[in-house]
Amino acid sequence: MIASPLLKRNPNLYVFLPLFYMVWEDAILTPSEIKTIHEIIALQDWLTNEERSFLLEQINPASPPTPDELKSWLDEIKLVRNQLSAEKKESLVDIGVQLVRHHSNGQGSFSEETLLTLSNIENALGNISRESAYLFHPDERKTITSQHSTQSTFNVDALAGILEGQQSSVIRKVKEIISDPEFQYLDTDNLNEYREKVLQWCKHLAAQGLGSLAFPKEYGGSGDLEAYFTTMETLSLYDFSLVVKFGVQFGLFGMSVYFLGTERHHKKYLQKIGTLELPGCFAMTETGHGSNVKGILTTATYVHATKSFTIHTPVPEARKEYIGNAACHGQMATVFAKLILEEKDYGVSAFLVPLRDKNGKILPGITIKDCGRKMGLNGVDNGVIYFDSVSVPSENLLNRYADISDDGKFTSPIASDNRRFFTMLGTLVGGRIGIPRAGLSAVKSGLTIAIRYGDQRKQFGPEGGSEVPILNYRTHQRRLMPLLANAYALHFSLQHLTSRFINRTESDMQEIEALAAALKSFSTWNTTHALQECRECCGGKGYLSENRIDRLKNDTDIFTTFEGDNTVLMQLVAKSRLTEFRHEFGNMNLFGVLNYVADQTKTSITEKNPFAVRNTSEEHLLDSEFQLHAFRYRERDILMSAAKRLKRHIDEGMDSFDAFNVCQHHLVNVGFAYVERVVLEKFIEQVEETKDAGCKTVLKRLCDLFALSQIDKNKGWYLEQGYMDGVKTKAIRKLMNQLCWDVRQEAVPLTDAFKIPESCLAAPIAL
Amino acid sequence: MIASPLLKRNPNLYVFLPLFYMVWEDAILTPSEIKTIHEIIALQDWLTNEERSFLLEQINPASPPTPDELKSWLDEIKLVRNQLSAEKKESLVDIGVQLVRHHSNGQGSFSEETLLTLSNIENALGNISRESAYLFHPDERKTITSQHSTQSTFNVDALAGILEGQQSSVIRKVKEIISDPEFQYLDTDNLNEYREKVLQWCKHLAAQGLGSLAFPKEYGGSGDLEAYFTTMETLSLYDFSLVVKFGVQFGLFGMSVYFLGTERHHKKYLQKIGTLELPGCFAMTETGHGSNVKGILTTATYVHATKSFTIHTPVPEARKEYIGNAACHGQMATVFAKLILEEKDYGVSAFLVPLRDKNGKILPGITIKDCGRKMGLNGVDNGVIYFDSVSVPSENLLNRYADISDDGKFTSPIASDNRRFFTMLGTLVGGRIGIPRAGLSAVKSGLTIAIRYGDQRKQFGPEGGSEVPILNYRTHQRRLMPLLANAYALHFSLQHLTSRFINRTESDMQEIEALAAALKSFSTWNTTHALQECRECCGGKGYLSENRIDRLKNDTDIFTTFEGDNTVLMQLVAKSRLTEFRHEFGNMNLFGVLNYVADQTKTSITEKNPFAVRNTSEEHLLDSEFQLHAFRYRERDILMSAAKRLKRHIDEGMDSFDAFNVCQHHLVNVGFAYVERVVLEKFIEQVEETKDAGCKTVLKRLCDLFALSQIDKNKGWYLEQGYMDGVKTKAIRKLMNQLCWDVRQEAVPLTDAFKIPESCLAAPIAL
Repeated sequence: MIASPLLKRNPNLYVFLPLFYMVWEDAILTPSEIKTIHEIIALQDWLTNEERSFLLEQINPASPPTPDELKSWLDEIKLVRNQLSAEKKESLVDIGVQLVRHHSNGQGSFSEETLLTLSNIENALGNISRESAYLFHPDERKTITSQHSTQSTFNVDALAGILEGQQSSVIRKVKEIISDPEFQYLDTDNLNEYREKVLQWCKHLAAQGLGSLAFPKEYGGSGDLEAYFTTMETLSLYDFSLVVKFGVQFGLFGMSVYFLGTERHHKKYLQKIGTLELPGCFAMTETGHGSNVKGILTTATYVHATKSFTIHTPVPEARKEYIGNAACHGQMATVFAKLILEEKDYGVSAFLVPLRDKNGKILPGITIKDCGRKMGLNGVDNGVIYFDSVSVPSENLLNRYADISDDGKFTSPIASDNRRFFTMLGTLVGGRIGIPRAGLSAVKSGLTIAIRYGDQRKQFGPEGGSEVPILNYRTHQRRLMPLLANAYALHFSLQHLTSRFINRTESDMQEIEALAAALKSFSTWNTTHALQECRECCGGKGYLSENRIDRLKNDTDIFTTFEGDNTVLMQLVAKSRLTEFRHEFGNMNLFGVLNYVADQTKTSITEKNPFAVRNTSEEHLLDSEFQLHAFRYRERDILMSAAKRLKRHIDEGMDSFDAFNVCQHHLVNVGFAYVERVVLEKFIEQVEETKDAGCKTVLKRLCDLFALSQIDKNKGWYLEQGYMDGVKTKAIRKLMNQLCWDVRQEAVPLTDAFKIPESCLAAPIAL
Repeated sequence: MIASPLLKRNPNLYVFLPLFYMVWEDAILTPSEIKTIHEIIALQDWLTNEERSFLLEQINPASPPTPDELKSWLDEIKLVRNQLSAEKKESLVDIGVQLVRHHSNGQGSFSEETLLTLSNIENALGNISRESAYLFHPDERKTITSQHSTQSTFNVDALAGILEGQQSSVIRKVKEIISDPEFQYLDTDNLNEYREKVLQWCKHLAAQGLGSLAFPKEYGGSGDLEAYFTTMETLSLYDFSLVVKFGVQFGLFGMSVYFLGTERHHKKYLQKIGTLELPGCFAMTETGHGSNVKGILTTATYVHATKSFTIHTPVPEARKEYIGNAACHGQMATVFAKLILEEKDYGVSAFLVPLRDKNGKILPGITIKDCGRKMGLNGVDNGVIYFDSVSVPSENLLNRYADISDDGKFTSPIASDNRRFFTMLGTLVGGRIGIPRAGLSAVKSGLTIAIRYGDQRKQFGPEGGSEVPILNYRTHQRRLMPLLANAYALHFSLQHLTSRFINRTESDMQEIEALAAALKSFSTWNTTHALQECRECCGGKGYLSENRIDRLKNDTDIFTTFEGDNTVLMQLVAKSRLTEFRHEFGNMNLFGVLNYVADQTKTSITEKNPFAVRNTSEEHLLDSEFQLHAFRYRERDILMSAAKRLKRHIDEGMDSFDAFNVCQHHLVNVGFAYVERVVLEKFIEQVEETKDAGCKTVLKRLCDLFALSQIDKNKGWYLEQGYMDGVKTKAIRKLMNQLCWDVRQEAVPLTDAFKIPESCLAAPIAL
């Protein structure tokens, strides 16, 4: 175009150059765009016919400019554009006029009308004027998005101290050990090598006294159950096969002897277990019975003549499966079996059964198979165990809740076999505390990796401007920031659960079991979900094993289904919550229903006032009172409606088992609503208790993000119930996005406060 | 209790036995329960004081019965219960009265008043009467939940035929090959062994002509692009490392030569590529630029004197990363680099660069590193490539869109570097079709495993009844059945996309690219999510590698971020959708806005009529017209509101880059709403076209489940907009649950219709 003699003759034609540049530079000319430009050119009566044809030819899709021509147009534009004021720089027409002036020694000019029709072309091409400014002069562009960055408004060490609580010394000790060169990640794909290494690591930990933390001092322990949980959690910053192996030996096996056994077992075994002199297993699950442990089929038949039990696997489905420590190292197992005496079935009890001798040779009557490779935790030697009429002395019965009298009778302080079994299970609830805490450590590692990477990794950016850290993108923030808030929220809740468990009384147990089941489910699902997001947020780098997210995800994936399948656990939680008003529920035939509904109506009137339903002020939404009210309302309403539904079905003659099945999804939501409320309460308490002003502010922000993102997740429910109006859920979403934007600035220091040893983090993208 | 002389003297006391049994058998007595029973016993004026104390002692938590006593109570109860009518069997009081009769030779009797007070105890213990019936006589219990089972209402082969469409012969050929003993899963953890095996497998496929399916006949191919996609999809029933290796060689590398090269490249290379004589790579992604490929830094500088290009990695971030086939086998690569000529940058072009000689020796100037172990796809040898001023002849430029003239000038039919680059990328959109189809095959395998297992695996059941297949549980159905519906829905949509791509015209391309991007994102996220559910639904069995879900999940996990990061792609989709009314949008300063809002208002009036908003009839909810309307309304409303938001921000002076960032999450939803509408439309069309009545019915049910579960997923949005009322979203949820229950019966045959070879499925739990 530029080379044409027509432009020499009539420099006014230059006025079209910037428009034409944009036409060709911009992706694709649609037919209607071309038509509009044609029409406008046709309207310009100052053009000769020849000039008109020439101009139309310049935008004929069949005859594009050459790449070099297009580049020369840009050079022209850049040249004159610097001569314009900031405002005029943004108009293609103004630049065009300036080009005309430049090429006509300041002579060219246009009527107002002409300029207006030209502006119409500009408009017809969409909102591109300002964009063109960036194309023509990239360096000018500064966006809010590009400028957002990491800033710390709080003292990282102070926050780390709050997270550690009273447990600093244990945490430091464990971190020191796992930062030792001996604890380098093993670079092997060989199962046996990995398993042996994990055993060695466990021995190191035992040598440091970490194996017997929870056992009484008289058996070489520290009598410090909290330190045991803290150790599990801290080890989980490192290798999960080690964590699980450690948990199987000192937690499942050791605690079963401690809690289900009596002094004779404690004396004989606890010290050996704590030092790993006696590696053991916890053989509860059978191939045929996982979640439904009550239905296990392994038998332990009492033989009074020899005062012994015969442990037996009656059918293949009764083999013990997935048993950690079984495939290679276990020398003894706590075996759960139905106690049979004089052909009567006394329900499930636990027995100590030797599996291997000191040299690791499998004992007669025992058959062990290797579970082989798994999705993760390949450093743990899971196995399958069959018992072929294996005899053990009667003192091997872990006899805290069930015993055999000298005259060969079954005795127990608990009459019902069922209730005895669930009481035994209740003592083992610690596993449901250790697992979510371990899973949370994995999330902390994953988030640290993904957030540090997101803070450094730049991709895309404003046209011509510099590239932007991906953590500045709103979708990236929406993926990671609520998870960071969850991690903090769960940290405090799990500490609360631990402390309740440690200071438990008999009458607390039902509630603690429900809380443990609920937090275990909620946390471990969060772990799986969070690590999936971390993987995706790190793109291809997240897929490389060197960055460890694959391992974190795969190792912890089983957490959602072991120590109780999450879906099953959430139903147990719901049933436990229902018993809270079982009387109310049971009496509902008569006045009960009326009282009930009356209560509900009262709730509706007092709790759903029209102002609150539509209140969108930031002050209101960030008020913990509002947040707690919303969570509590949801918890109570879902629980009550589940009860009413169940009741209605049963009253209509439905079998109660069917009624529970019909409401199963509703019951899972009862569990969620309950645990979400607890988590929020504990987080709010933590914020209130926090003294340090900087920490308090950032924790409050995380707490708000937790609260609002949960409400947003459940907005369908809130809207369905009329507890909130659409204007309010929209305002909550907007505020949540703003909180994500704000928290992003503090995200890196917030992960620094997890204080994960760099040697454990290990991911090259996060160092 | 039974042994007490008091009962001999006054057999009327037996009336309490069933109640007391329940008290002890049931979990735990709460203080208020104990109090109620005490009060009621105190009210019985027919009791002596001694008898009262005796009875109270029987329920004293401090002195429980022995396990044997409790068992003897049950024996008593069972004995007399058989003498009662069905109705009376369910009442603890009636059983008690019968016990009294039994022990008093039919003499005992009670006043109405006494019986009423006793009933009050029963009520006080909650709704347990009927439960007791099951405890006392288990075999009677038959529940709806237990009796639900697999039933086929359609012809599996007919449905399989519908899925296969015109591609049966290719599918059968590929299935035959991958069922061959040569294609046994490799049981190794050794990377090299696995990689070599995968190369061998690829060679077998090439030998069968599968490598060159898509290439023109004159170069040894079949000219059948559809068969290529079908092959990818079918291979994905087997090993994903093979699929990706196959895709890298014949898809990415081969297609880049085919689509970006010209005859000289086709002649020289296509045959060798199709036979795998020339193993190659597709080297686009750099460490520093993944999603933002336009920003790659590798240079290809033209040297006119030698008519050659110098390929160079100027900084470490410019190294090519994750390149499949690079670490071991690739002898040549299509390398994307910025073409520099006379110090001018002409944007990204593609060049063929030799990497290794025929013997596999790396050529001078090339440095290759191994990416090492990954989350999955470990049979693919991904590598990192550095170029140190590597010279290639100028004919190695893939010159369909960019060329060098004899006099050393850059030429191109496309003037803009940007537009040229995106045109080149557009030709490679096939990758975004192959990947979701491969991912869908993984879902089909995962669902087949999880559904067959869920149909067989029994766990829990009504008290005393037999255990129930876990697929009969509502939560299990809610996890798996919508995913089964999704799998069918996506199958038809991806076939539609493939056919549009194959029959494309120039003017279709923008829409096809958007559709491919949207379906790729939607499908691959579905793959990740579905396989996660399958894993959890199979519990511990799902965690064992032998059942393959870990491999399916880990191998396909990268699908959400390669061939375009899903989140980024969804934003591209949104931008493409926005251009649909860019004029409207660009003109909004003036009358535009008014017209716009007027349009919206019209929509609101016509589309949200109050009857439909609250219509909960099943007929309405299962009407495809309603479903389509809901999806289309959502699509249009989200798109328009996104446009308005963007416009508002920009008008208020926000930088457009910031405006897009603020709306980013909204834009991702534009993509979702669009693709969900397309998927529903195609599924409905498929149902309408289906002739076979049985297949039509089951497909309609799946289509309804897809539609309603999507609406349920998006119910927050529908409620927020007032498009539906809470009564309607509740009715939809209820109907969705019912559809899950119905589809469960056909779930196994529906997976049978996928016709996955058993040797490929391989999971022991699914065979």
